[in-house]
Amino acid sequence: MHSPAPTPAMTVDDQQRAEALIECARDFGQRGWTPATSGNYSLRLDDGSILITRSGTDKRKLDLDGLMRLDPAGRPIEPGRASAEAGLHVQIYLRCAQARAVLHVHSPIATVASRRFEAHGAMRFVNYELLKAFEGVSDHDLEFELPVVGNDQNIDRLAASIEPRLGQAGTLPGYLIAGHGVYAWGRSVDDAARHLEALDFLIQCELSDNR
Amino acid sequence: MHSPAPTPAMTVDDQQRAEALIECARDFGQRGWTPATSGNYSLRLDDGSILITRSGTDKRKLDLDGLMRLDPAGRPIEPGRASAEAGLHVQIYLRCAQARAVLHVHSPIATVASRRFEAHGAMRFVNYELLKAFEGVSDHDLEFELPVVGNDQNIDRLAASIEPRLGQAGTLPGYLIAGHGVYAWGRSVDDAARHLEALDFLIQCELSDNR
Amino acid sequence: MHSPAPTPAMTVDDQQRAEALIECARDFGQRGWTPATSGNYSLRLDDGSILITRSGTDKRKLDLDGLMRLDPAGRPIEPGRASAEAGLHVQIYLRCAQARAVLHVHSPIATVASRRFEAHGAMRFVNYELLKAFEGVSDHDLEFELPVVGNDQNIDRLAASIEPRLGQAGTLPGYLIAGHGVYAWGRSVDDAARHLEALDFLIQCELSDNR
Amino acid sequence: MHSPAPTPAMTVDDQQRAEALIECARDFGQRGWTPATSGNYSLRLDDGSILITRSGTDKRKLDLDGLMRLDPAGRPIEPGRASAEAGLHVQIYLRCAQARAVLHVHSPIATVASRRFEAHGAMRFVNYELLKAFEGVSDHDLEFELPVVGNDQNIDRLAASIEPRLGQAGTLPGYLIAGHGVYAWGRSVDDAARHLEALDFLIQCELSDNR
Repeated sequence: MHSPAPTPAMTVDDQQRAEALIECARDFGQRGWTPATSGNYSLRLDDGSILITRSGTDKRKLDLDGLMRLDPAGRPIEPGRASAEAGLHVQIYLRCAQARAVLHVHSPIATVASRRFEAHGAMRFVNYELLKAFEGVSDHDLEFELPVVGNDQNIDRLAASIEPRLGQAGTLPGYLIAGHGVYAWGRSVDDAARHLEALDFLIQCELSDNR
Repeated sequence: MHSPAPTPAMTVDDQQRAEALIECARDFGQRGWTPATSGNYSLRLDDGSILITRSGTDKRKLDLDGLMRLDPAGRPIEPGRASAEAGLHVQIYLRCAQARAVLHVHSPIATVASRRFEAHGAMRFVNYELLKAFEGVSDHDLEFELPVVGNDQNIDRLAASIEPRLGQAGTLPGYLIAGHGVYAWGRSVDDAARHLEALDFLIQCELSDNR
Repeated sequence: MHSPAPTPAMTVDDQQRAEALIECARDFGQRGWTPATSGNYSLRLDDGSILITRSGTDKRKLDLDGLMRLDPAGRPIEPGRASAEAGLHVQIYLRCAQARAVLHVHSPIATVASRRFEAHGAMRFVNYELLKAFEGVSDHDLEFELPVVGNDQNIDRLAASIEPRLGQAGTLPGYLIAGHGVYAWGRSVDDAARHLEALDFLIQCELSDNR
Repeated sequence: MHSPAPTPAMTVDDQQRAEALIECARDFGQRGWTPATSGNYSLRLDDGSILITRSGTDKRKLDLDGLMRLDPAGRPIEPGRASAEAGLHVQIYLRCAQARAVLHVHSPIATVASRRFEAHGAMRFVNYELLKAFEGVSDHDLEFELPVVGNDQNIDRLAASIEPRLGQAGTLPGYLIAGHGVYAWGRSVDDAARHLEALDFLIQCELSDNR
């Protein structure tokens, strides 16, 4: 199906990252976090290009053929159609220099929270031990925010509304889009997955306190 | 157990569809969507006949022997007793020309919603990104309805009450029957399963907002 | 560990029933219905004796060694200590002539319901399609009750309080004990398991409507 | 990775306990009780030393390399960094002479309860049959308490606030730390796991009654 395009080869490290991403996608799929072929995932490779899930595939069954390459600006360097939200992945890699993996899922709990907290513009997590799961957090006794932005089918406009929320002090490495789902990122697939798991946990706890 | 009746052979495509249906039934069973041998599933085959689950079997263990053939009007063309609700499947195939698979489950969440929203006659889903999982939906910023009808042990009467709700503009490819469960359909087993998964997700989100 | 006591041999049918019971125990254990080694299960064998789980074993790992024989009055005819609640199993077999399998689990949902509905003395299920999962129920448009009795560490006294609730018209083949869990039975392991699964479903739906 | 330090050999019984602990960690991980590499587990070995999980590992994938030895006072006798909360494990072994295994998880339900009941200083469980899962409890008709203490990043101070709550009459072998999670212990991995499972069950029931 792929034309023999001169896509640059992946390094051995890249290949291991891709395997980790596939394992992560299958695990999250089993948890019901990517219903109805939703969700999308990406990696920043060693040469700066981006490996991202193709549009419309079942993420529970992700394999290498379900991933394609974009250049750092988000232009395809391989045949195929990338996830419609590739622009949000590109934005995160541009703004967060250390991000190497971006994960986006539609867990029911994140979606419910994204709607309930849209008017607040953020969820606030205070005094949770699990905040220590986020890289760089060592003192649990702080307040962290997870931004919540409105949804928009125009990805450029959506990215623009997210832009001022990225990289602020006291903000966790992720955000919610109302009625849509949750994004999280990190220095590696493991870090990003740990962050997403921690966000799911924190959101679940807060929802139980905000019925 | 089967007499050597002259049931027409299935095409290779039909056989693949049947395998997909069986896999889907087992997956949904594992999720607890077909408790106590409930639920029923069908396919429209290439010759227009219908392959449907037999009555009273455990859908978590569905195999080819658990399926039987009906003609397009719903009359058995093979020995055995089809699901009591075969008439609803036949109706969907008659009214929705492109439907090739119909899935009906009794997930607790669909049953709770079916009772809570019976008086409204429908559930309404607004501004959910996951609405894009439904075929033909491209603009998330619309309002979609899932019809809710009262239950009736008389299948003809039940079908008559559903009839005016099928194929309306702004209506999703499925419906709830009060105290009973959810139906969904699509052009293929994959499409129907994606639709059912999306409905389960949307219903779950709405119930969290309507305690 | 077993002395070579003259325990009567099981028939081939009995052995198949025992295998079905073990499979059922493992399945229910995986669902979290028998936390902390709780729950107990039994069969009435072809000679009228009772095969029941031993006390204190992890039901997720049930095997033949975890089962022992009682005579129809509940007296051990094999070395070992039967579940403390064997008396309730014996009572069901005495009062319900067709019961061949009795299943008792501690699912969180049944326990919550047992406490919430103790003062009512019963849970009432109206117009649920899934009521048809119970043997003999053909018209869904009826009202069925599941008795709820207070707990008692004295099994004879507990049995006495259950006695008047067994076998009444309009009563499902099961009951709840407050703060304790749920019992269900049937003509076979499959029937009893289907009944228990249906009760779990119905209780779950009612709890969602009675927060 | 390990230097050839003269760490005392484990007995055959110790090795079996370690295997049981690993199996338990994987099981609890599958249930979602140790999100984002949280949770920690330990054993008291036959020579009085402590085998405890290393810091920051994914407990769903625990193996022998993920465990390290401390002396009875909590000082490492092997290279590596133990869980930050090792001090709480040491305290339990010192105060509860019969404790041989300590399990700590971050289940969402325990975390929600720990915050909701922090002001009460305890959760109270009355008339639950499952209280009999705790060693030494034979009469269900009593009232038991699970202490709830405030969280503190200073482990010595946290231990000091727990100290008066350990080993009191009518208190279960465990406690909650607010916004953090649940500890449980027992004479063996099986006992401690049964206690933790019972606590999770009881907490779940109480939360349903205290929305």
